[in-house]
Amino acid sequence: MISVVILGNGNVATHLHNAFLKAKNIAVSKINSRELENIPNSDVTIIAVSDDAIETVSKSILDRKGLIVHTSGAVDINIITHKRKGVFYPLQSFSKDTPVNFNTVPFCLETKHKEDYSLIESLAKSIGEKTYTINSEQRKKLHVAAVFVNNFSNHMYKIGNDICEKNKVPFEILYPLIEETAKKAQSISPEKAQTGPAKRNDIQTIKNHLENLNLQQQEIYQLLTTSIQKSIE
Amino acid sequence: MISVVILGNGNVATHLHNAFLKAKNIAVSKINSRELENIPNSDVTIIAVSDDAIETVSKSILDRKGLIVHTSGAVDINIITHKRKGVFYPLQSFSKDTPVNFNTVPFCLETKHKEDYSLIESLAKSIGEKTYTINSEQRKKLHVAAVFVNNFSNHMYKIGNDICEKNKVPFEILYPLIEETAKKAQSISPEKAQTGPAKRNDIQTIKNHLENLNLQQQEIYQLLTTSIQKSIE
Repeated sequence: MISVVILGNGNVATHLHNAFLKAKNIAVSKINSRELENIPNSDVTIIAVSDDAIETVSKSILDRKGLIVHTSGAVDINIITHKRKGVFYPLQSFSKDTPVNFNTVPFCLETKHKEDYSLIESLAKSIGEKTYTINSEQRKKLHVAAVFVNNFSNHMYKIGNDICEKNKVPFEILYPLIEETAKKAQSISPEKAQTGPAKRNDIQTIKNHLENLNLQQQEIYQLLTTSIQKSIE
Repeated sequence: MISVVILGNGNVATHLHNAFLKAKNIAVSKINSRELENIPNSDVTIIAVSDDAIETVSKSILDRKGLIVHTSGAVDINIITHKRKGVFYPLQSFSKDTPVNFNTVPFCLETKHKEDYSLIESLAKSIGEKTYTINSEQRKKLHVAAVFVNNFSNHMYKIGNDICEKNKVPFEILYPLIEETAKKAQSISPEKAQTGPAKRNDIQTIKNHLENLNLQQQEIYQLLTTSIQKSIE
């Protein structure tokens, strides 16, 4: 049995709490990080608050025993003041109302002391399947990469949606293309999957496309076209 | 029975040919567009060549009977010289070695004469499920939107992959995030799905991210961050 206390009230805290409640051999409780009094003892304390608040929360529970971890992709392990510290970073985009299947979520794990690693590994395996040992430097790079494949890809979808709405074409026509693009990046790599006017250097089509875009969209179209062409030189 | 001749030798020509060969009530033959002699008569002739070559191929088969269509997302219907003309545009990214499931491919259809529409609709339904009536103006916009959701999203994956490779982190850790991002764009819309430092205006994280990127990546990161922030104003 592993006992866990989750400090926090956001999406990650809530989704982790729900998952641990259903897991075998885990005793979990969740506590609002603004009410840090009479917290029960636990093997692991998960600080699942916004990046800016991790240090403050850690300092306000200084005399706490057990392993103290945070859940952030962007923050160094050493932000935690305790000696026994670690990172328990589920790499997925969590939304309030969308259920999470932790079996498909990669857990990026790090501990300051080697002896603590198996503890958070067991914790991850109690709700998920995939664990990776990722140190703080690697995790920061992974977090930047995640911004590109998640936030920025999604913004490309947003612009596609805007163009469709403006021209009264159903955006759903593009759903199979979105799916296929995501699949090919995994099956044959994004480099091999690249197609389109930028790659072919199809100047006439690029010119036609630019005429159909607003200023902001044009700027993005041109920069990404240049970047694609540089990447295949 | 509908008889079809496909002119062309690229990915679209090949994948359509393979699909029609398996379809019921379709008689299909494929002919290299550089050997346009003794072409058998057909109800429909599909010009499946590169955008630049459509007009030339159409002019070189001027006396041909039946319905003449092209398969391009970017080219106007009127590029075809024949009176009975149309567009048969399967909106998907075709790769040479990746099999295509046409049941999931949206067919964007247009004919000059209303009477011809049911013919290409039947043709599309013989290998696929989803058909949309899309005129040339709409199709051009859809084609630009497709560049964003396909080529540019894929380039975001490419940059994510580059960052991972450079820092010796397995890119596969990001696969579930890529999948989830593609799914959420469809289930809750890209606008509602947006998360991340740009949306939160998390200045410290944005600054940290920029320090980890090369010049080209920084330029893209900054432009897309600005664009995300403008889009939620």
